[in-house]
Amino acid sequence: MEQRLSTNVSRTIQTKLVLPPDTNHMGTIFGGKILAMIDEIAGIAAMRHSKSEVVTASIDKVNFLSTVKVGDILTFEGFVISTGRTSMEVYVKVVCEHPDTGQRRLTTDSFLTMVAVDSAGKPTPVPGVIPETDEEKELYKQSLERRQRRLLAKQARKTEK
Amino acid sequence: MEQRLSTNVSRTIQTKLVLPPDTNHMGTIFGGKILAMIDEIAGIAAMRHSKSEVVTASIDKVNFLSTVKVGDILTFEGFVISTGRTSMEVYVKVVCEHPDTGQRRLTTDSFLTMVAVDSAGKPTPVPGVIPETDEEKELYKQSLERRQRRLLAKQARKTEK
Amino acid sequence: MEQRLSTNVSRTIQTKLVLPPDTNHMGTIFGGKILAMIDEIAGIAAMRHSKSEVVTASIDKVNFLSTVKVGDILTFEGFVISTGRTSMEVYVKVVCEHPDTGQRRLTTDSFLTMVAVDSAGKPTPVPGVIPETDEEKELYKQSLERRQRRLLAKQARKTEK
Amino acid sequence: MEQRLSTNVSRTIQTKLVLPPDTNHMGTIFGGKILAMIDEIAGIAAMRHSKSEVVTASIDKVNFLSTVKVGDILTFEGFVISTGRTSMEVYVKVVCEHPDTGQRRLTTDSFLTMVAVDSAGKPTPVPGVIPETDEEKELYKQSLERRQRRLLAKQARKTEK
Amino acid sequence: MEQRLSTNVSRTIQTKLVLPPDTNHMGTIFGGKILAMIDEIAGIAAMRHSKSEVVTASIDKVNFLSTVKVGDILTFEGFVISTGRTSMEVYVKVVCEHPDTGQRRLTTDSFLTMVAVDSAGKPTPVPGVIPETDEEKELYKQSLERRQRRLLAKQARKTEK
Amino acid sequence: MEQRLSTNVSRTIQTKLVLPPDTNHMGTIFGGKILAMIDEIAGIAAMRHSKSEVVTASIDKVNFLSTVKVGDILTFEGFVISTGRTSMEVYVKVVCEHPDTGQRRLTTDSFLTMVAVDSAGKPTPVPGVIPETDEEKELYKQSLERRQRRLLAKQARKTEK
Ligand SMILES: CC(C)(COP(=O)(O)OP(=O)(O)OC[C@H]1O[C@@H](n2cnc3c(N)ncnc32)[C@H](O)[C@@H]1OP(=O)(O)O)[C@@H](O)C(=O)NCCC(=O)NCCS
Ligand SMILES: CC(C)(COP(=O)(O)OP(=O)(O)OC[C@H]1O[C@@H](n2cnc3c(N)ncnc32)[C@H](O)[C@@H]1OP(=O)(O)O)[C@@H](O)C(=O)NCCC(=O)NCCS
Ligand SMILES: CC(C)(COP(=O)(O)OP(=O)(O)OC[C@H]1O[C@@H](n2cnc3c(N)ncnc32)[C@H](O)[C@@H]1OP(=O)(O)O)[C@@H](O)C(=O)NCCC(=O)NCCS
Ligand SMILES: CC(C)(COP(=O)(O)OP(=O)(O)OC[C@H]1O[C@@H](n2cnc3c(N)ncnc32)[C@H](O)[C@@H]1OP(=O)(O)O)[C@@H](O)C(=O)NCCC(=O)NCCS
Repeated sequence: MEQRLSTNVSRTIQTKLVLPPDTNHMGTIFGGKILAMIDEIAGIAAMRHSKSEVVTASIDKVNFLSTVKVGDILTFEGFVISTGRTSMEVYVKVVCEHPDTGQRRLTTDSFLTMVAVDSAGKPTPVPGVIPETDEEKELYKQSLERRQRRLLAKQARKTEK
Repeated sequence: MEQRLSTNVSRTIQTKLVLPPDTNHMGTIFGGKILAMIDEIAGIAAMRHSKSEVVTASIDKVNFLSTVKVGDILTFEGFVISTGRTSMEVYVKVVCEHPDTGQRRLTTDSFLTMVAVDSAGKPTPVPGVIPETDEEKELYKQSLERRQRRLLAKQARKTEK
Repeated sequence: MEQRLSTNVSRTIQTKLVLPPDTNHMGTIFGGKILAMIDEIAGIAAMRHSKSEVVTASIDKVNFLSTVKVGDILTFEGFVISTGRTSMEVYVKVVCEHPDTGQRRLTTDSFLTMVAVDSAGKPTPVPGVIPETDEEKELYKQSLERRQRRLLAKQARKTEK
Repeated sequence: MEQRLSTNVSRTIQTKLVLPPDTNHMGTIFGGKILAMIDEIAGIAAMRHSKSEVVTASIDKVNFLSTVKVGDILTFEGFVISTGRTSMEVYVKVVCEHPDTGQRRLTTDSFLTMVAVDSAGKPTPVPGVIPETDEEKELYKQSLERRQRRLLAKQARKTEK
Repeated sequence: MEQRLSTNVSRTIQTKLVLPPDTNHMGTIFGGKILAMIDEIAGIAAMRHSKSEVVTASIDKVNFLSTVKVGDILTFEGFVISTGRTSMEVYVKVVCEHPDTGQRRLTTDSFLTMVAVDSAGKPTPVPGVIPETDEEKELYKQSLERRQRRLLAKQARKTEK
Repeated sequence: MEQRLSTNVSRTIQTKLVLPPDTNHMGTIFGGKILAMIDEIAGIAAMRHSKSEVVTASIDKVNFLSTVKVGDILTFEGFVISTGRTSMEVYVKVVCEHPDTGQRRLTTDSFLTMVAVDSAGKPTPVPGVIPETDEEKELYKQSLERRQRRLLAKQARKTEK
């Protein structure tokens, strides 16, 4: 598939007020709630890019940098940063905003691999991506390097056997 | 409160994939789900503008213009378009995107009045708003007219009694 | 469809204990939760009247008259008050009961238009309605007047174009 | 506490449209969903009677007499039928209505014992109950007999030890 | 069906942290939440034993022996203890663990009858069960006695008519 | 803290029937649902080990090895495999069981770092762990190696600055 799409096609934003059911009894959000929302954003971004159903193949290591409390406002932003034949790497950034001050800080960011599938669940090709801002170009470059390293590791494992 | 804030301070975006639990058994979304999300966006927009807790005072007539199906992607966008002493009028627009074609159409839009309240639930003053785009300026003008009509109606009702 | 049904056929009652997940961290219910329940009651009432699937076409302006707290008991009552060819106007009243005193006050009331649809989503005819109590007769009369005004407004808009 | 209240004080009605998340993939409702709703109705009925917080002490054997499908309408009706010093026996009846025909059949009925508690969780006295209809008088009589049998069984167990 | 399966085939364990949405505003869990989970475990246990879909035919009287609070850890354990032609009796035990001390106490236990059904909802035969531990053998014996009593009661009711 | 606890203290098991609301409209589970459950199990395991509140510091890369469908039964098993001063590494294994055949296959496994915190959210010391089975000893060894690598990476990053 020779077509390439801008990152704007897949860019997806979600805003969420943290409510009591999202938290433990100290009023701190569960990591699992954030992971579930990251996966949801990544799924919508990948659907928008590929115009097909998608499944989550993997999510890279996630570090939770600071606590999030009841009443805080979370913003999730995700977009496709690079593509393989049927897979898309999606970057999701989570920012926490304090409602009284409007102050913002990074909660976490994350890289997921989503795969486009047809109605039988079989992987199908996806269009390429055109990074636009400097941040996107940097993420695109890093993504290609990660993909390269993964392929080398795979070959190494095959050779070992 | 003399301070005035740009509509960008309150602008809030939400993206939602329509899932089976949101729909009846014909796969059509419930109007109530959309109303609940409109209220949530309006609440976050008003919190961001007023930097305080808010309650919903009213929601204007909502027309549902076309059906939304399982698998569609809904985008909600809301911002404060005008303010009174303690109340804020929030505009929320809901767009439905078909995942296979990327085609978008308006599902509904809606005006809500949110009131800023202190920790005892008493209305507290809010900053004013500065509309920026042409669409916002038009909404701002219409909002002032609606407010005028409401006040006249209120006075008329008082005189009648 | 010449048949006419009593309002008792569609009358639907719901009682709900307000729980922490329905509220913000001040323990006050979200307007959106009430809107979602109003739509659910209206849907059941219209299904009972029309013996078919229904969709929400519109909900009239809703004013929230007083706050509702965790531990309060809400009662929703809805019934079809008048009908067109395929549409039904449903009235829903929401009363809040304080558990310690049993004292009740009106939280809000609301008018919705529900449309009966067949399995392809196309509007289908509904039976008429017979108001019975004085309150119902009054609501019926007002509903006919609102319908009249809406039709005139529609024609006016068409003439303008 | 010498005061006695009519069964009308506690009578609580709930109507529920059965939706996909309530059911397994054959579209049949889970027994657990019905049990959870029975407990909720019984709780509200007992709160209304006792004007205090309540906890569920026990639920008698529940038989599920017929299946309930997606799109069916369930009606739950509960009221306090008899009282001890701090406990209330609540009767809950569940009827399933087929939306296309309006035909109704009994799904199950159930007896629960709810106990009124103060803010420290300690049982507190409740008012008596005045059964009104013939059905309620019959249920009241049966309830006293069950209570009698339970007491005798308790004494028998104590004597055995 | 002559085959008999060990209780280990159906044994199912669930662990749950009690969270604010599971409780009333005194932080005490709703009985209905526990009933819904008991039914879920019993359903999985019966599916594992019968390798087919199942429905809940009945749940025996459930006594709630002690309160469970926000932050407690509940463990549910269920297995098939005896079988009829198409029905399975499932035993579920619920233990509450205090997180700070690790102390455990019985919250409740319960007997449910689950019936294996085919895709048309018709009861289908199930394999027998082989109790293994002493506790299981005792439960198995008691279950046969209960079944005997139920059949006698059924015949008595038929003779009366 | 010199005390060391067996892995049996923290071992936590969860069994879940995959239901329609957990899945997309192809009936395939969302990765995010599985991530949320992994975090919940890891949290309970870490609470049991540390007898204190915990927060998720990080979750290592998660690969989803095979799809999980509506009606499948998922088993999650988690336990603390190694500890630092205030952090615990938890291993969670997810197995999918096909209900008709009882056949099981690995869905994913995952390593999380949970940190014990006091009521002010400050990290507090945790007891050590004693691996028991061969699998646990192997995981323990690998965990120490990972910790070693992380510390070296941290020092390297500090030196760079
Ligand atoms: C909204 C509420 C705080 C207003 O209280 P009040 O005693 O009428 O207070 P005020 O008269 O000082 O009004 C405060 C502002 O709200 C506005 N307002 C009040 N009712 C309104 C309505 N139905 N629609 C639009 N605006 C309304 C007033 O015009 C005033 O605006 P201004 O300060 O910009 O001039 C009160 O009605 C309330 O608490 N309602 C319930 C809100 C709620 O909990 N909603 C969720 C579901 S129930
Ligand atoms: C409601 C809907 C079926 C009407 O479709 P339509 O092509 O306009 O059909 P018609 O012109 O034949 O109108 C059917 C009836 O609906 C009424 N109607 C249509 N739009 C309406 C509105 N906004 N408010 C009140 N009534 C409305 C018409 O007056 C007509 O009533 P009558 O038969 O009693 O005279 C269509 O707009 C729709 O599907 N909307 C989305 C509904 C939905 O899915 N809601 C949930 C959330 S999106
Ligand atoms: C359970 C159900 C399938 C039994 O149907 P039925 O027409 O009575 O079928 P049968 O007479 O063949 O009985 C089938 C088995 O169920 C048992 N059974 C029926 N009702 C029972 C009850 N209330 N309690 C215990 N066992 C019961 C019978 O003893 C028989 O057992 P066996 O085959 O081991 O001897 C039927 O009553 C039903 O569908 N109930 C609703 C189940 C449901 O959907 N529950 C969820 C909430 S409504
Ligand atoms: C985890 C957290 C408490 C660590 O705070 P800190 O100020 O870095 O504290 P410390 O430096 O004393 O570290 C405490 C322990 O956490 C470990 N840790 C910190 N960040 C980590 C990470 N990203 N991955 C793995 N371990 C980490 C440290 O190595 C240390 O372990 P040790 O005591 O066994 O040696 C803090 O980052 C936090 O609160 N994060 C948010 C947690 C949360 O709320 N998660 C849910 C979703 S946001």
